[in-house]
Order: sequence, then structure tokens, then C-alpha cells
Amino acid sequence: DILERPEGLDLGGKLREVTILMSDIRGFTTLCEQLEPTEVVRVLNRYLGAMTDIILSYQGTIDEFIGDAILAVFGAPQHREDDADRAVQCALAMQAAHEELNRQNAQEGFPALHTGIALNTGQVIAGNIGSERRSKYGFVGHAMNVTARIEDVTRGDDVVIADATLQKLRGHYRIDDSREIRAPGMDGPLHIHRVLGDLP
Amino acid sequence: DILERPEGLDLGGKLREVTILMSDIRGFTTLCEQLEPTEVVRVLNRYLGAMTDIILSYQGTIDEFIGDAILAVFGAPQHREDDADRAVQCALAMQAAHEELNRQNAQEGFPALHTGIALNTGQVIAGNIGSERRSKYGFVGHAMNVTARIEDVTRGDDVVIADATLQKLRGHYRIDDSREIRAPGMDGPLHIHRVLGDLP
Repeated sequence: DILERPEGLDLGGKLREVTILMSDIRGFTTLCEQLEPTEVVRVLNRYLGAMTDIILSYQGTIDEFIGDAILAVFGAPQHREDDADRAVQCALAMQAAHEELNRQNAQEGFPALHTGIALNTGQVIAGNIGSERRSKYGFVGHAMNVTARIEDVTRGDDVVIADATLQKLRGHYRIDDSREIRAPGMDGPLHIHRVLGDLP
Repeated sequence: DILERPEGLDLGGKLREVTILMSDIRGFTTLCEQLEPTEVVRVLNRYLGAMTDIILSYQGTIDEFIGDAILAVFGAPQHREDDADRAVQCALAMQAAHEELNRQNAQEGFPALHTGIALNTGQVIAGNIGSERRSKYGFVGHAMNVTARIEDVTRGDDVVIADATLQKLRGHYRIDDSREIRAPGMDGPLHIHRVLGDLP
């Protein structure tokens, strides 16, 4: 696993253009209060397991699980011409996988999960980040923070992408609900779009 | 390391009362744009290394580095009566350590780092969270999210604590700037306080 043994990567820090994917479960903290702790972890881990498999199958790099949130990038350590397209297709596949996941949840008496997914594309610094005792291949930069701000405005079942991601797409997708958002710490408005799926 | 080999913990998920510490560097994304990528990683890793040593010396559990942010808890896997006090003392020690850190940064021509630190106390679900391929001892719950909302309003050099943390403190501290904040996803206002240091 290149993330566990990242020999040969530039660990000191290198600028990379990546498409960043951030997802989290809507209303997850309410779920934490409704279910037993062991049930929360069972539902969460099944979800994270299914999403991990999908992200890896689209050659995404999982940066972090942060509670119920997943942070992944496409384009580092390895750049590919279709990084943005694979990220969008991955997000659509993640949403599609909820049907089966929620069928399993319903069978066991658990509520359905609905996830908002945000994508952004930009330059980040990739490198081995952390302390001597604990470090990992990770990412820092403004584009990471912007992704979190887009994530804040996504709703359940949505895939929302920054205009920077749209500009990089080679495939054709059904887009709607294009709009501007403003958030603290961002210079000017940010244009975002909702992706409904591939064009037929 | 109990986090790497957590045998004997209740990995399936257990409710724990913890004090959560979240810190991040003010203006870090600007720094990312001003310095070379290798310099950013050098400055960041020196900072994370120093903070890690302090957190571990106060028996905190580091949950995550998220870019320049640090998420740690006091009270899991092991509960101690003075969890909240150790968390506050740790945060004060982290701020105090910036003097030496910034002296080193200045010597190498790097700008000073200023960190905002937020603390909150509450019930979280602790367990082994993730996928089969990638899991770790981690934490979920409303109290984690509330900590991030407090972190959003901290300024550089500040230690800001939730009223829930203040109520758990056994020691005596100099407090000022007590106020209420409101944030999306929170029921009602949240009372927060700035901690200036131990009482003499």
C-alpha cells in the first residue's frame, strides 16, 4: 500500500493539482443519539467500508475518515488526465450504492443514511505530514478548506462540485442548480453546481 | 501504543465522556501560498511534532491531524477524574510553546504561527471506526461537531472552552470574554469562555 509505505514519493512537500472529494452523512449526530453505541459503529463501519471500496476502485486516495466524514483526493500521489472525471463518477457511484446500503439498514431496523458529497479541484501541497511519532501522506492548502465549505451546503443525496472541477471535466454530465455561495475565509463568491448523472 | 494495538478496548463502540481539544493555525492557507511546498511541510511538521509531544505528555489521545488542525481527546481510552483540567492545561502549554517555535521560525525566515484552540466536554461514541482495510480508534458524536463550531470562532493565541468544560474543571483559571455563539446545526446558543491561564 503506497500510503503505508510511501517510498519514492516526494515526502517533503510537492504542489499537486487534485480533485478533492468530501462526503458526510446528513443527520449523523442525531443517529448517534438514537441508536446504541455499538449499533452506531456497526452502521458507520458498513457505510465506510462500502465507500472505501468504491473510492479505491476509482483510484482515489483516502486522506482521512473524520468521524462520519470521508476526505479523499484524486490526482495524488499519481496524476492522471481524468482525475476530475473519476472523482465525479466515484461520487455518483457512492450515491448509487446507498440504495443497497439502506436496504440492509432497513432490514436490521436502522434508519436510511443520506450523504452529501462535495468536490473541488485545485492546487494542494501533498507530503508526509505529521510528527516524528505519527505522520502520513496528506494534503494541505486552500482548496481543501474550500471543499469543506461546499460540503457545508450540500444536502442528502447531492453531489455538488465547484466550478473549478466542472472546468476540468472531459465527460458530459447532467448539471443543475448552479449557484454562488459565500463563506467566511473565502475571497469572493464560489460558483457551485449539482451533478445529476452522466448524460445519456 | 494502545492506539495502534488496541486490544482490550471496547472496539465495537462505547459511550465515553471526554474533553475534546481542537486546534488550528490561523492563516495557514495563506502561509501555504507564501512559502515553498517543502518549507510549508517543514514548518507544519515542526509545529505538529511539538504539539504532539505536549498532548501526549498531558495524556491526551490524538485522534487526527486534519491538514494543520489537530483533534485530540482527554478521557478515552482511559477515563481520569482530571480529564477536563489536563485538557485545559495542555491547551495553555501548547500556546506557551509557540514562543520557542516562533523564535525558530523567525531564525529561518518563516512567519510566526498563531493557533486557536477550542475545548468542549461531552459524551461521544469511542470505537474502532473505519473500513476493514483501514480503521482506527476514533470518536463520533454531537460533542465533536460542537468543538469544531467553537474552533471556528477562536482567534490566534486563544484558548476557548465550552461551558460544559468549565463545569468539569477542578482547578481555578482566569476566565474572560464569556459569551454566547450560535451556529448551524446546534440547538440554541452555546456558552463559551476564554481561558487566560491558571489563577496565581
